[in-house]
Amino acid sequence: MPRSEVSSPVIKRLPRYYRFLGELKRQGVIHISSRELSEKMGLTASQIRQDLNCFGGFGQQGYGYNIEQLHEAVGNILGLQAANKTILIGAGNLGRAITAHIEFPKRGFQLIGIFDNDPNICGKKMRGIEVMNISRVSDFCRDNSPVCAVLCIPKKAAGELVPELVKCGIKAFWNFSHYEFNITENEKIIVENVHLADSLMTLAYGLNNY
Amino acid sequence: MPRSEVSSPVIKRLPRYYRFLGELKRQGVIHISSRELSEKMGLTASQIRQDLNCFGGFGQQGYGYNIEQLHEAVGNILGLQAANKTILIGAGNLGRAITAHIEFPKRGFQLIGIFDNDPNICGKKMRGIEVMNISRVSDFCRDNSPVCAVLCIPKKAAGELVPELVKCGIKAFWNFSHYEFNITENEKIIVENVHLADSLMTLAYGLNNY
Repeated sequence: MPRSEVSSPVIKRLPRYYRFLGELKRQGVIHISSRELSEKMGLTASQIRQDLNCFGGFGQQGYGYNIEQLHEAVGNILGLQAANKTILIGAGNLGRAITAHIEFPKRGFQLIGIFDNDPNICGKKMRGIEVMNISRVSDFCRDNSPVCAVLCIPKKAAGELVPELVKCGIKAFWNFSHYEFNITENEKIIVENVHLADSLMTLAYGLNNY
Repeated sequence: MPRSEVSSPVIKRLPRYYRFLGELKRQGVIHISSRELSEKMGLTASQIRQDLNCFGGFGQQGYGYNIEQLHEAVGNILGLQAANKTILIGAGNLGRAITAHIEFPKRGFQLIGIFDNDPNICGKKMRGIEVMNISRVSDFCRDNSPVCAVLCIPKKAAGELVPELVKCGIKAFWNFSHYEFNITENEKIIVENVHLADSLMTLAYGLNNY
């Protein structure tokens, strides 16, 4: 199946396959049947087979999947070997935590620049990277060609900055701001939104209607 | 419609309605038609009417919605006035950022305790709350009756701790760990998962298949 035809729910399940397979690999498991994998993951065996068939044939009838091979294959499908050059905008609490907590190289990314507009933060180092003034972001992009930006800034600031970043060649956004991308206008832009406050309010709804 | 019958996608959209309405309110907008709101939110007008009709009648034919009233009503449906007592487990980079960055009271929660197992972190204060040793969590729950726990700990630690927390009366989990809740076993447990690494790997897929 051409990658462009793989549905979004299938794509969203791939990282979870990758995690489960990695764990099985660390536990020393060599093979697993789609039935066993489905029980561990809370999916049906047929869904697992369908999902993986989108990307070509894996596993052997009656024999199951070779964990190490499938783990590597899913990692390659995800593009985790890529080291996509990435900048992070906004070195406040959240930006600092993401810089410190997220293992970018293991996820296909390489953090090469951090920016903020606060002169008290600029010049400080985070994970060995000096925080630069946001006014330098265009020059930095021209010289270093990052393709991904992590947005840890308020909605308004994101709204002002995103068009400039797109012009600078940023193709993918990991968006922690509440800025809403108009994807119809930016068809070639890839966005992953992480709306932490929305997630917490959904939990409030659950408790309110417990 | 009874709340238990409202579908999960509708519930997931509520926080976004709440954000948009709050912004319109701050901009001084008094009324809005479902058509105008739908254009702003990238939904269809009929979807907005259907979503809101799950919770009773809002708006008047030919007149639209009163922003302030609808904002307040959606906030009440979400339960943002609730101040659900909450504990946070794991005061590492991520736990610290969530403590500092998230406005718990505005989202229906009140952070009353923070726990870690690192003696170098215990005793320190975060947002005015002293980090306690995780060994004290059961006693703390017995004395203070929190209903929600934010998990900022590794998968293995979460797996060991969750059964104890459920016994202590925790009903809702904001789960940043990779621990997978078995919801069929814990029907009355409410979970919101935030899998940051999965989100980033989905972005890697997008770039890899750009």
